[in-house]
Amino acid sequence: MDARDALRKHVILVTGASGFTGFHACKYFAAQGMGVAALVRDGSIMEPIEGVHYYPCDLLNKERLQELVREIAPDEVLHLGGKNSVPESWSNPLLYMETNIFPTLYLLNALRSFPSTKILVVGSLTAFELTPPFEAPHPYSLSKSLQKAAALSWEKLYGQHVMLAEPSNLIGPGPSTGFCSLLGRHIVATERNQQTNTFQISSRYTRRNFLDVRDAVRAYGMILTQGKSGEMYMVRSAVERTLGDVSELMIGLSKAKVPVTWEEVGETNLSSQRTIESPITIGELEKLGWQASISILSSLLDVLDYYRKEGDSV
Amino acid sequence: MDARDALRKHVILVTGASGFTGFHACKYFAAQGMGVAALVRDGSIMEPIEGVHYYPCDLLNKERLQELVREIAPDEVLHLGGKNSVPESWSNPLLYMETNIFPTLYLLNALRSFPSTKILVVGSLTAFELTPPFEAPHPYSLSKSLQKAAALSWEKLYGQHVMLAEPSNLIGPGPSTGFCSLLGRHIVATERNQQTNTFQISSRYTRRNFLDVRDAVRAYGMILTQGKSGEMYMVRSAVERTLGDVSELMIGLSKAKVPVTWEEVGETNLSSQRTIESPITIGELEKLGWQASISILSSLLDVLDYYRKEGDSV
Repeated sequence: MDARDALRKHVILVTGASGFTGFHACKYFAAQGMGVAALVRDGSIMEPIEGVHYYPCDLLNKERLQELVREIAPDEVLHLGGKNSVPESWSNPLLYMETNIFPTLYLLNALRSFPSTKILVVGSLTAFELTPPFEAPHPYSLSKSLQKAAALSWEKLYGQHVMLAEPSNLIGPGPSTGFCSLLGRHIVATERNQQTNTFQISSRYTRRNFLDVRDAVRAYGMILTQGKSGEMYMVRSAVERTLGDVSELMIGLSKAKVPVTWEEVGETNLSSQRTIESPITIGELEKLGWQASISILSSLLDVLDYYRKEGDSV
Repeated sequence: MDARDALRKHVILVTGASGFTGFHACKYFAAQGMGVAALVRDGSIMEPIEGVHYYPCDLLNKERLQELVREIAPDEVLHLGGKNSVPESWSNPLLYMETNIFPTLYLLNALRSFPSTKILVVGSLTAFELTPPFEAPHPYSLSKSLQKAAALSWEKLYGQHVMLAEPSNLIGPGPSTGFCSLLGRHIVATERNQQTNTFQISSRYTRRNFLDVRDAVRAYGMILTQGKSGEMYMVRSAVERTLGDVSELMIGLSKAKVPVTWEEVGETNLSSQRTIESPITIGELEKLGWQASISILSSLLDVLDYYRKEGDSV
C-alpha cells in the first residue's frame, strides 16, 4: 500500500508539522476528515493522530522534498516550515535566509507538476516593503519579505494557485517560544515553587496582536478552500493588547504571586497600561466569513494548563 | 608565502571571473595596478594575466567562499558571479534562484568581518519592483530582483558598504552569448563558408541599450572608488538601438553576404528600422564623471575580430 492510499481522499501536505502551529494544523485538518501528510524534522517524536501520516524531511533537501510531493500528490499544501526567532536571526542570518526562502521555492517548483494544487505559504506580519530604502528591521523580517516576494512572483510566472497568509502573534497550548508561553511557563514554575526570579519584560506598553493558534489554523483552512490565487491574507484579531495588560490577565489566572519587572520603570505596578480595541478591520480573510472566536482568557488558560500538565519537566 | 602576500597592495576580489565580463574586469583592475583575486568555476582553464591570481570556487559552497574571503581579505569586491540566460531560467528556475541569490548572501555574510571592504553587486536592468502585483517577466528577472533586494537590505541591516550596478546589454570580444556575439559568430562562419543558413531574429524593431563591456568594467571601478553605500547605479549608454540597426551595422563590417530573417516579416530588408538617440540621461554614475567611450562600430569590430582569431573552432 503506498502512502497516498494510506491517506484519505482529500490530502493536505503540511510542512513544519513538528512546530507549534504545525501540530494544531495537523489535528485540525485530520478532524475535518482530510488525509494529512505531515512533514516533520528528522528525528522528531510525534504524537500519533488518526488520519495523520508523518514523513521526516529536511526541507533544504530538495530531492527528498520533490520525491515526497510526487508520492503524496497533495490537493492542498500548507507551508508552515521555517524559522521565526528574531534574536536567532541576528546571530545566524544565513540560516534564516536559507530556511525561509529555499524550501518555499523547492515546494513551488516540485508542485509545477500539480497545477490544481492549492498552496498556502505562511509568511509574517513583520515583512516589509522590498523597495528603496530597503529598511529591514531584522534578518528574520528580510527572510520573510523575500519569501513573500518569491512566492507571489512565482504564482504570476507559473500560474500555480499560490496564496499568502500573514499571521500576527499566535498563542495557545504547545511548545511555542512566544511571549505568552514564556510567561505561562514562568507562572507554572512559580506555582510549583521552582521559580523565585521575577519575569522580565522589555516594555509594558508594547502592543501586540495576539491570536489563538487554533483560530489561525481555521483561517488557513478557509483560505485554502475559498481563497483567491495571488492574494495576501492578514490573519489577526481585532484587538491590540499591551504586554502589560496580557501579563496582568495571565497572572490573574493563577493563585501564585508572580513578580514582573519592566525595563523602562523597574516596578511591578500593572494598572496604568491599557489595551486598545481597534475597530474590526474587514480584510480579505474577514470577507470570507472568518473571525477570531477564542477569547484571550481562554487562550491564556490553555497555555497555563499545557505547562501544568507537563509535570516536572517544566 | 600566503596568497594575500602574492597579490599587490590594494586587493579586489572578482567573482564570476571565468565569465565574459569577469575576464575584462580582471584585465582592467590588474592594469590599474591592483592585486586581483579571481574566483573561477572549478575546472576553468584561465589565461595567465600579470597581477591576477585565480581561485577555483563553487560559489554555492559557503564554507569555501568564507575561507577564501578570510584568506584574501579584499579591499574591494566585484560580485559578477551568477547566471544570466532568460531561456535557461525558464527551464531551470531553481538553479537561477540558487545561483543568483545565495552566493550574494554568502559573500555579504563572510564580509561582515571586513566592515571597510567596498562591495559592488552586479545586478540586471531586467529587475522589477517586488511589490504587488509581483509581475516578473521571467525567472531570471525574479532571481536578480531578489538578489537586489537582499543585497540592499543587507546593507541597511549590517552597515556594510554595499552598492548595486545594473548594466544594460554588454557587448565586446569574448565568450558572450548575447545578440552581437551570436551574430558575430554567424558572420565569421559565413566568411569561412561554414555557414549557409540565414540568421534568425525575433523582431528587428526591438530596442536594446548596448554598451561595451570595457566601458562597463571602467564604470564598476569608478563606483567601487567613489560610489555611495546603498546606491544603485545604472550602467548604460545613451543610445537605444534596434536589433535591425545593429545587425545592419555589423553585417556592413564584413564582406560576406549574410542573410538575416525576422520573425515578424520574414524578409531581409533592413532599411526601415532606426535607432533612437535618447538625450543623455544623467544618472548617479554619470554624476561621478563616467560616460561610455567606445563606439558601437568599434565594439562590433572587436566582436568580429575575436571570432576571426578563434580559428576553426568557431
